[in-house]
Amino acid sequence: MIVLGFDPGTASTGWGVIEQEGNRLRSLGHGCIVTSAKDPTHVRLRQIHDQARGLITRFSPDIVVLEDLFVNVNVKTALAVGQAKGVLYLAASDLDASPREYSPLQIKQAVTGYGRASKIQVQEMIKVILHLPRIPQPDHAADALAVAITHTHHNGEAFQAAKDRPPGVRPAGRP
Amino acid sequence: MIVLGFDPGTASTGWGVIEQEGNRLRSLGHGCIVTSAKDPTHVRLRQIHDQARGLITRFSPDIVVLEDLFVNVNVKTALAVGQAKGVLYLAASDLDASPREYSPLQIKQAVTGYGRASKIQVQEMIKVILHLPRIPQPDHAADALAVAITHTHHNGEAFQAAKDRPPGVRPAGRP
Repeated sequence: MIVLGFDPGTASTGWGVIEQEGNRLRSLGHGCIVTSAKDPTHVRLRQIHDQARGLITRFSPDIVVLEDLFVNVNVKTALAVGQAKGVLYLAASDLDASPREYSPLQIKQAVTGYGRASKIQVQEMIKVILHLPRIPQPDHAADALAVAITHTHHNGEAFQAAKDRPPGVRPAGRP
Repeated sequence: MIVLGFDPGTASTGWGVIEQEGNRLRSLGHGCIVTSAKDPTHVRLRQIHDQARGLITRFSPDIVVLEDLFVNVNVKTALAVGQAKGVLYLAASDLDASPREYSPLQIKQAVTGYGRASKIQVQEMIKVILHLPRIPQPDHAADALAVAITHTHHNGEAFQAAKDRPPGVRPAGRP
Protein backbone atom coordinates (compact mmCIF):
# COMPACT_ATOMS: atom_id res chain seq x y z
CA MET A 1 0.00 0.00 0.00
CA ILE A 2 1.22 3.48 -0.88
CA VAL A 3 -0.02 6.41 1.21
CA LEU A 4 0.35 10.06 0.20
CA GLY A 5 0.05 12.39 3.18
CA PHE A 6 -0.50 16.13 3.08
CA ASP A 7 -0.16 18.86 5.67
CA PRO A 8 -2.35 21.46 3.94
CA GLY A 9 -1.73 25.18 3.85
CA THR A 10 -1.98 27.92 1.25
CA ALA A 11 1.61 29.14 1.68
CA SER A 12 3.14 25.73 2.21
CA THR A 13 1.56 22.29 1.77
CA GLY A 14 3.83 19.53 3.05
CA TRP A 15 3.71 16.14 1.35
CA GLY A 16 5.14 12.74 2.19
CA VAL A 17 4.77 9.35 0.57
CA ILE A 18 5.27 6.04 2.35
CA GLU A 19 5.04 2.48 1.16
CA GLN A 20 3.83 -0.28 3.42
CA GLU A 21 5.12 -3.76 2.62
CA GLY A 22 4.09 -6.35 5.17
CA ASN A 23 5.08 -4.87 8.49
CA ARG A 24 7.66 -2.49 7.12
CA LEU A 25 7.19 1.16 6.22
CA ARG A 26 9.52 3.09 4.01
CA SER A 27 9.58 6.64 2.74
CA LEU A 28 9.32 7.14 -1.02
CA GLY A 29 9.75 10.89 -0.85
CA HIS A 30 8.70 14.09 0.84
CA GLY A 31 8.70 17.81 0.22
CA CYS A 32 6.68 20.99 0.18
CA ILE A 33 4.45 22.73 -2.30
CA VAL A 34 5.30 26.37 -1.71
CA THR A 35 3.28 29.25 -3.12
CA SER A 36 3.99 32.97 -3.08
CA ALA A 37 1.87 35.48 -1.17
CA LYS A 38 2.48 37.80 -4.14
CA ASP A 39 0.30 35.61 -6.35
CA PRO A 40 -3.49 35.85 -6.21
CA THR A 41 -5.35 33.11 -4.35
CA HIS A 42 -6.69 31.35 -7.43
CA VAL A 43 -3.17 31.04 -8.86
CA ARG A 44 -1.82 29.64 -5.59
CA LEU A 45 -4.66 27.13 -5.30
CA ARG A 46 -4.17 26.10 -8.93
CA GLN A 47 -0.46 25.47 -8.17
CA ILE A 48 -1.31 23.37 -5.11
CA HIS A 49 -3.88 21.37 -7.09
CA ASP A 50 -1.65 20.79 -10.10
CA GLN A 51 1.42 19.84 -8.07
CA ALA A 52 -0.70 17.46 -5.96
CA ARG A 53 -2.00 15.92 -9.20
CA GLY A 54 1.63 15.53 -10.30
CA LEU A 55 2.49 13.68 -7.06
CA ILE A 56 -0.52 11.38 -7.50
CA THR A 57 0.59 10.58 -11.06
CA ARG A 58 4.19 10.04 -9.95
CA PHE A 59 3.56 7.85 -6.90
CA SER A 60 0.17 6.22 -7.71
CA PRO A 61 -0.94 6.23 -4.06
CA ASP A 62 -3.77 3.98 -2.92
CA ILE A 63 -5.06 6.75 -0.69
CA VAL A 64 -4.50 10.39 0.14
CA VAL A 65 -4.59 11.38 3.81
CA LEU A 66 -4.64 14.85 5.32
CA GLU A 67 -3.76 16.39 8.64
CA ASP A 68 -6.96 17.68 10.17
CA LEU A 69 -6.91 21.21 11.47
CA PHE A 70 -5.75 21.85 14.98
CA VAL A 71 -8.65 23.17 17.01
CA ASN A 72 -7.06 26.32 18.39
CA VAL A 73 -6.82 28.30 15.18
CA ASN A 74 -8.76 31.37 14.21
CA VAL A 75 -11.42 31.54 11.54
CA LYS A 76 -9.12 33.21 9.03
CA THR A 77 -6.56 30.42 9.29
CA ALA A 78 -9.29 27.77 9.11
CA LEU A 79 -10.62 29.34 5.95
CA ALA A 80 -7.17 29.41 4.30
CA VAL A 81 -6.40 25.82 5.29
CA GLY A 82 -9.87 24.79 4.14
CA GLN A 83 -9.22 26.25 0.70
CA ALA A 84 -6.00 24.25 0.36
CA LYS A 85 -7.78 21.13 1.60
CA GLY A 86 -10.56 21.65 -0.92
CA VAL A 87 -8.20 21.55 -3.89
CA LEU A 88 -6.31 18.57 -2.42
CA TYR A 89 -9.60 16.67 -2.09
CA LEU A 90 -10.32 17.57 -5.68
CA ALA A 91 -6.87 16.41 -6.82
CA ALA A 92 -7.54 13.04 -5.13
CA SER A 93 -11.11 12.67 -6.35
CA ASP A 94 -10.31 10.08 -9.01
CA LEU A 95 -8.72 7.64 -6.57
CA ASP A 96 -10.86 4.68 -5.53
CA ALA A 97 -10.41 5.43 -1.83
CA SER A 98 -11.85 8.56 -0.24
CA PRO A 99 -9.25 10.83 1.35
CA ARG A 100 -9.08 10.47 5.11
CA GLU A 101 -8.17 12.95 7.81
CA TYR A 102 -6.39 12.48 11.10
CA SER A 103 -6.23 14.96 13.96
CA PRO A 104 -2.96 16.11 15.53
CA LEU A 105 -3.91 14.05 18.60
CA GLN A 106 -4.37 10.91 16.51
CA ILE A 107 -1.09 11.58 14.73
CA LYS A 108 0.88 12.05 17.94
CA GLN A 109 -0.67 8.95 19.47
CA ALA A 110 -0.01 6.87 16.35
CA VAL A 111 3.57 8.00 15.85
CA THR A 112 4.78 8.26 19.46
CA GLY A 113 2.10 6.48 21.50
CA TYR A 114 1.57 9.70 23.46
CA GLY A 115 -1.02 12.35 22.53
CA ARG A 116 0.91 15.20 24.09
CA ALA A 117 4.24 14.41 22.48
CA SER A 118 6.38 17.36 21.43
CA LYS A 119 7.04 18.22 17.82
CA ILE A 120 10.64 17.04 18.13
CA GLN A 121 9.53 13.73 19.67
CA VAL A 122 7.19 13.15 16.73
CA GLN A 123 9.95 14.01 14.28
CA GLU A 124 12.45 11.68 15.97
CA MET A 125 9.93 8.83 15.80
CA ILE A 126 9.27 9.48 12.10
CA LYS A 127 13.01 9.10 11.52
CA VAL A 128 13.06 5.81 13.46
CA ILE A 129 9.89 4.33 11.93
CA LEU A 130 10.92 5.15 8.36
CA HIS A 131 14.62 4.28 8.87
CA LEU A 132 15.67 7.73 7.70
CA PRO A 133 19.24 8.99 8.19
CA ARG A 134 17.94 12.26 9.65
CA ILE A 135 14.76 14.12 10.60
CA PRO A 136 12.88 14.99 7.42
CA GLN A 137 12.79 18.68 6.54
CA PRO A 138 10.99 21.03 6.36
CA ASP A 139 8.56 20.61 9.24
CA HIS A 140 5.53 20.53 6.94
CA ALA A 141 7.03 17.58 5.05
CA ALA A 142 7.67 15.75 8.34
CA ASP A 143 4.07 16.43 9.36
CA ALA A 144 2.89 14.98 6.04
CA LEU A 145 4.93 11.80 6.60
CA ALA A 146 3.47 11.61 10.12
CA VAL A 147 -0.12 11.64 8.88
CA ALA A 148 0.76 8.99 6.29
CA ILE A 149 2.24 6.79 9.04
CA THR A 150 -0.90 7.40 11.11
CA HIS A 151 -3.04 6.02 8.32
CA THR A 152 -1.10 2.75 8.21
CA HIS A 153 -1.57 2.50 11.97
CA HIS A 154 -5.31 3.08 11.75
CA ASN A 155 -5.39 0.75 8.80
CA GLY A 156 -4.35 -1.94 11.29
CA GLU A 157 -0.98 -3.01 9.96
CA ALA A 158 2.70 -2.30 10.04
CA PHE A 159 2.71 0.41 12.62
CA GLN A 160 2.67 -1.69 15.77
CA ALA A 161 5.10 -4.04 14.11
CA ALA A 162 7.45 -1.19 13.40
CA LYS A 163 7.18 0.20 16.90
CA ASP A 164 6.59 -2.57 19.39
CA ARG A 165 7.75 -5.89 18.03
CA PRO A 166 10.89 -7.37 16.59
CA PRO A 167 10.97 -7.43 12.78
CA GLY A 168 8.95 -10.21 11.18
CA VAL A 169 6.42 -10.63 13.99
CA ARG A 170 2.91 -9.66 12.98
CA PRO A 171 -0.04 -8.64 15.14
CA ALA A 172 -2.18 -11.54 16.35
CA GLY A 173 -5.20 -12.21 14.18
CA ARG A 174 -3.84 -10.37 11.16
CA PRO A 175 -2.78 -12.18 8.02
CA MET B 1 -19.88 42.87 -17.97
CA ILE B 2 -21.18 39.56 -16.67
CA VAL B 3 -20.61 38.72 -12.98
CA LEU B 4 -21.06 35.26 -11.50
CA GLY B 5 -21.58 35.38 -7.74
CA PHE B 6 -21.30 32.47 -5.33
CA ASP B 7 -22.37 32.00 -1.73
CA PRO B 8 -20.07 29.07 -0.94
CA GLY B 9 -20.95 26.08 1.23
CA THR B 10 -20.36 22.35 1.07
CA ALA B 11 -24.03 21.41 1.43
CA SER B 12 -25.38 24.27 -0.67
CA THR B 13 -23.52 26.75 -2.83
CA GLY B 14 -25.78 29.51 -4.11
CA TRP B 15 -25.04 31.05 -7.49
CA GLY B 16 -26.35 34.08 -9.31
CA VAL B 17 -25.39 35.72 -12.61
CA ILE B 18 -26.01 39.35 -13.47
CA GLU B 19 -25.28 41.34 -16.56
CA GLN B 20 -24.34 44.99 -16.38
CA GLU B 21 -25.19 47.04 -19.46
CA GLY B 22 -24.52 50.73 -19.01
CA ASN B 23 -26.28 51.62 -15.79
CA ARG B 24 -28.69 48.75 -15.83
CA LEU B 25 -28.31 45.40 -14.09
CA ARG B 26 -30.29 42.34 -15.00
CA SER B 27 -30.33 38.80 -13.70
CA LEU B 28 -29.31 36.04 -16.12
CA GLY B 29 -30.09 33.25 -13.71
CA HIS B 30 -29.65 31.94 -10.21
CA GLY B 31 -29.83 28.69 -8.32
CA CYS B 32 -28.07 26.36 -5.90
CA ILE B 33 -25.50 23.61 -6.20
CA VAL B 34 -26.74 21.12 -3.63
CA THR B 35 -24.70 18.15 -2.43
CA SER B 36 -25.69 15.28 -0.18
CA ALA B 37 -24.19 14.70 3.26
CA LYS B 38 -24.37 11.00 2.40
CA ASP B 39 -21.60 11.44 -0.18
CA PRO B 40 -17.94 11.61 0.86
CA THR B 41 -16.30 15.04 0.91
CA HIS B 42 -14.21 14.54 -2.24
CA VAL B 43 -17.33 13.61 -4.22
CA ARG B 44 -19.21 16.68 -2.96
CA LEU B 45 -16.31 19.01 -3.73
CA ARG B 46 -15.97 17.45 -7.19
CA GLN B 47 -19.70 18.14 -7.79
CA ILE B 48 -19.34 21.77 -6.67
CA HIS B 49 -16.27 22.24 -8.88
CA ASP B 50 -17.78 20.61 -11.95
CA GLN B 51 -21.13 22.41 -11.68
CA ALA B 52 -19.31 25.72 -11.18
CA ARG B 53 -17.25 24.95 -14.30
CA GLY B 54 -20.52 24.29 -16.11
CA LEU B 55 -21.90 27.69 -15.05
CA ILE B 56 -18.70 29.41 -16.21
CA THR B 57 -18.98 27.69 -19.59
CA ARG B 58 -22.68 28.54 -19.85
CA PHE B 59 -22.54 32.21 -18.85
CA SER B 60 -18.94 33.19 -19.77
CA PRO B 61 -18.62 35.59 -16.82
CA ASP B 62 -15.93 38.26 -16.82
CA ILE B 63 -15.35 37.64 -13.13
CA VAL B 64 -16.35 35.32 -10.32
CA VAL B 65 -17.09 36.91 -6.94
CA LEU B 66 -17.63 35.20 -3.60
CA GLU B 67 -19.29 36.05 -0.35
CA ASP B 68 -16.61 36.25 2.29
CA LEU B 69 -17.20 34.36 5.48
CA PHE B 70 -19.12 36.04 8.27
CA VAL B 71 -16.78 36.51 11.20
CA ASN B 72 -18.86 34.83 13.88
CA VAL B 73 -18.58 31.25 12.72
CA ASN B 74 -16.72 28.42 14.34
CA VAL B 75 -13.56 26.80 12.99
CA LYS B 76 -15.43 23.74 11.74
CA THR B 77 -17.76 25.87 9.61
CA ALA B 78 -14.86 27.99 8.37
CA LEU B 79 -13.01 24.87 7.29
CA ALA B 80 -16.03 23.53 5.38
CA VAL B 81 -16.73 26.87 3.69
CA GLY B 82 -13.02 27.18 2.91
CA GLN B 83 -13.05 23.82 1.13
CA ALA B 84 -15.97 24.90 -1.05
CA LYS B 85 -14.24 28.22 -1.74
CA GLY B 86 -11.07 26.43 -2.71
CA VAL B 87 -12.74 24.45 -5.48
CA LEU B 88 -14.67 27.55 -6.67
CA TYR B 89 -11.38 29.46 -6.94
CA LEU B 90 -9.99 26.54 -8.90
CA ALA B 91 -13.02 26.46 -11.20
CA ALA B 92 -12.48 30.17 -11.92
CA SER B 93 -8.71 29.95 -12.32
CA ASP B 94 -8.73 30.18 -16.12
CA LEU B 95 -10.62 33.50 -16.18
CA ASP B 96 -8.54 36.58 -16.83
CA ALA B 97 -9.79 38.34 -13.71
CA SER B 98 -8.96 37.05 -10.24
CA PRO B 99 -12.00 36.12 -8.16
CA ARG B 100 -12.93 38.76 -5.63
CA GLU B 101 -14.57 38.49 -2.23
CA TYR B 102 -16.95 40.82 -0.44
CA SER B 103 -17.88 40.71 3.23
CA PRO B 104 -21.49 40.58 4.44
CA LEU B 105 -21.06 44.18 5.62
CA GLN B 106 -19.91 45.31 2.17
CA ILE B 107 -22.79 43.41 0.58
CA LYS B 108 -25.43 44.95 2.84
CA GLN B 109 -24.00 48.41 2.33
CA ALA B 110 -23.83 47.99 -1.43
CA VAL B 111 -27.30 46.54 -1.84
CA THR B 112 -29.27 48.53 0.75
CA GLY B 113 -26.95 51.39 1.71
CA TYR B 114 -27.08 50.21 5.31
CA GLY B 115 -24.56 47.78 6.85
CA ARG B 116 -26.98 46.44 9.42
CA ALA B 117 -29.84 45.77 7.02
CA SER B 118 -31.92 42.65 7.67
CA LYS B 119 -31.86 39.64 5.39
CA ILE B 120 -35.34 40.50 4.09
CA GLN B 121 -34.34 44.11 3.37
CA VAL B 122 -31.40 42.87 1.31
CA GLN B 123 -33.65 40.43 -0.55
CA GLU B 124 -36.25 43.12 -1.28
CA MET B 125 -33.55 45.39 -2.69
CA ILE B 126 -32.18 42.58 -4.90
CA LYS B 127 -35.69 42.24 -6.32
CA VAL B 128 -35.89 45.99 -6.98
CA ILE B 129 -32.36 46.38 -8.41
CA LEU B 130 -32.70 43.39 -10.75
CA HIS B 131 -36.35 44.11 -11.69
CA LEU B 132 -37.39 40.65 -10.60
CA PRO B 133 -41.07 39.72 -10.18
CA ARG B 134 -40.36 38.23 -6.76
CA ILE B 135 -37.59 37.66 -4.21
CA PRO B 136 -35.13 35.10 -5.60
CA GLN B 137 -35.17 31.73 -3.91
CA PRO B 138 -33.56 29.91 -2.17
CA ASP B 139 -31.75 32.26 0.22
CA HIS B 140 -28.30 31.08 -0.92
CA ALA B 141 -29.16 32.05 -4.51
CA ALA B 142 -30.33 35.50 -3.35
CA ASP B 143 -27.06 35.89 -1.41
CA ALA B 144 -25.12 35.00 -4.56
CA LEU B 145 -26.99 37.64 -6.59
CA ALA B 146 -26.30 40.13 -3.79
CA VAL B 147 -22.54 39.60 -3.93
CA ALA B 148 -22.65 39.91 -7.74
CA ILE B 149 -24.51 43.24 -7.38
CA THR B 150 -21.92 44.32 -4.81
CA HIS B 151 -19.13 43.79 -7.32
CA THR B 152 -20.78 46.07 -9.87
CA HIS B 153 -21.07 48.67 -7.12
CA HIS B 154 -17.42 48.39 -6.14
CA ASN B 155 -16.54 48.32 -9.79
CA GLY B 156 -17.88 51.87 -9.85
CA GLU B 157 -20.77 51.61 -12.27
CA ALA B 158 -24.44 50.86 -12.57
CA PHE B 159 -25.21 50.43 -8.93
CA GLN B 160 -25.69 54.04 -7.93
CA ALA B 161 -27.54 54.60 -11.17
CA ALA B 162 -29.88 51.76 -10.40
CA LYS B 163 -30.48 52.93 -6.88
CA ASP B 164 -30.34 56.70 -6.74
CA ARG B 165 -31.02 58.21 -10.11
CA PRO B 166 -33.74 58.09 -12.70
CA PRO B 167 -33.08 55.67 -15.54
CA GLY B 168 -30.72 56.95 -18.23
CA VAL B 169 -28.76 59.33 -16.02
CA ARG B 170 -25.13 58.29 -15.55
CA PRO B 171 -22.75 59.13 -12.73
CA ALA B 172 -20.70 62.27 -13.33
CA GLY B 173 -17.27 61.60 -14.74
CA ARG B 174 -18.08 58.12 -15.98
CA PRO B 175 -18.40 57.32 -19.64
